Amino acid sequence: MVERAVFFLSDQTGVTAETLGHSLVTQFTGQNFRQVTLPFIDSEDKAREAVQIINTAGADGALTPIVFSTLVQPELRAIVKHATGLHLDIFDAFLEPLSVELDEQPTYASGGAHGMTDIDAYMRRIEATNFALANDDGGISRNYDVADVILVGVSRSGKTPTCLYLALQYGVYAANYPLTDEELESGTLPKFLVQQQQKLYGLTIAPERLRQIRKERRPLGKYASAQQVRFELREAGKIFRRYGIPHVDTTEFSIEEISSRILDTTGVERRVRP
Amino acid sequence: MVERAVFFLSDQTGVTAETLGHSLVTQFTGQNFRQVTLPFIDSEDKAREAVQIINTAGADGALTPIVFSTLVQPELRAIVKHATGLHLDIFDAFLEPLSVELDEQPTYASGGAHGMTDIDAYMRRIEATNFALANDDGGISRNYDVADVILVGVSRSGKTPTCLYLALQYGVYAANYPLTDEELESGTLPKFLVQQQQKLYGLTIAPERLRQIRKERRPLGKYASAQQVRFELREAGKIFRRYGIPHVDTTEFSIEEISSRILDTTGVERRVRP
Repeated sequence: MVERAVFFLSDQTGVTAETLGHSLVTQFTGQNFRQVTLPFIDSEDKAREAVQIINTAGADGALTPIVFSTLVQPELRAIVKHATGLHLDIFDAFLEPLSVELDEQPTYASGGAHGMTDIDAYMRRIEATNFALANDDGGISRNYDVADVILVGVSRSGKTPTCLYLALQYGVYAANYPLTDEELESGTLPKFLVQQQQKLYGLTIAPERLRQIRKERRPLGKYASAQQVRFELREAGKIFRRYGIPHVDTTEFSIEEISSRILDTTGVERRVRP
Repeated sequence: MVERAVFFLSDQTGVTAETLGHSLVTQFTGQNFRQVTLPFIDSEDKAREAVQIINTAGADGALTPIVFSTLVQPELRAIVKHATGLHLDIFDAFLEPLSVELDEQPTYASGGAHGMTDIDAYMRRIEATNFALANDDGGISRNYDVADVILVGVSRSGKTPTCLYLALQYGVYAANYPLTDEELESGTLPKFLVQQQQKLYGLTIAPERLRQIRKERRPLGKYASAQQVRFELREAGKIFRRYGIPHVDTTEFSIEEISSRILDTTGVERRVRP
């Protein structure tokens, strides 16, 4: 299928343009997109360079490129508009009505969204990440008194990446504790977890999917066997019910979705906003 | 200052609406925004519930709420539009022109952007995260042959969160190695790093900022002293120049910006897209 170039233009990281653009292009499944991020377009030279790159992608009978842009400065946006392509510009679309409603002129300063304008927010994310690392896999610190949430689940149910995502994205203090044979066979949680019962959140996953994930790590032996996986998930489910722990099945969910559901269910507040 | 409610509405996690909305509202500094995410609006009941929440926030002489929406399904968008507020809807703004250009009808299926539609992408992010953890702080694995990039820098220059962000956001395999007194005093890197010279990327930071960060961790002693911090950063700079290691000063940058700059400079390809 003929390829069509999709560009994400930004005077910053490009994360906003990528996120926005991705949510739109995934609405069209009959296409073969080649996605290219052009970040840090913060000068007229770089804007002209971007125009060249886009025009090259659209030359010689190629499909018209799609250009998602989050450039803030009007003079850079004006240059980029000269590129041949379908331009979808969030500032064009939304800045004017927002400015009218707020009765304020935009600053046109770039970097407000992801910049280090707020050192406190940076520190909170770093501290939350360190917390997640120190409290990963039931390990080292067990500073559960300052945790916002403590994820429990069997090995490879998605606890670690979810904790790290909650920390990096939202500055949330997330610990995790793996349910091992000890808990699964006795059906009871250790006392230091029961004391934090209101912070516990369970992750579960379909047996077949868990086997698939575990096989990547350790293909042989009991760890990825159908019997072991089913035993662990069944007993983990009993523990969730016994202690009234809210939980989510991660089988069909991305890390973003699992994280959002945890915040939504528990009411834990984001300490920073992305 | 009178508060104005800003809502991020989504039938999924809300990450796209938050990212988009945040980049727009930060253009206006003379406001006092209260930001609220309403995720997982995937039924008519939940859409009506969102309308109530928004209307409550805008009642009794309060400022008109701002509503950023990434709802996909037309019938849910129609319900939400009944809420009193300034509606800024990315599908309203961009889906139609995109559909015309692509000559294809959108699927209106939600969850394409962050859903588990691509299990491979999920696995890549998990594997990249495990790689970052195993290769953090020069530790355990040192699987530098499969690394996409190896970050080097002094303690607390931002290596660990950057590696984890690269893994979670982009599925990039990022290892990190701390420059300790051994390297800093000899001015040489260990052989196993020199062998991977083309993958090395340096992080540096302003001395005052590094002191501030280190003091949070260990307020007393040499670690956060002005003399030690200046010595380490000076010698690290010499190593970067000696080995021709590209580097970035993280002082004024967020984790997103550092990560984007690394990908931009090194040309390392994203293995997944957010």
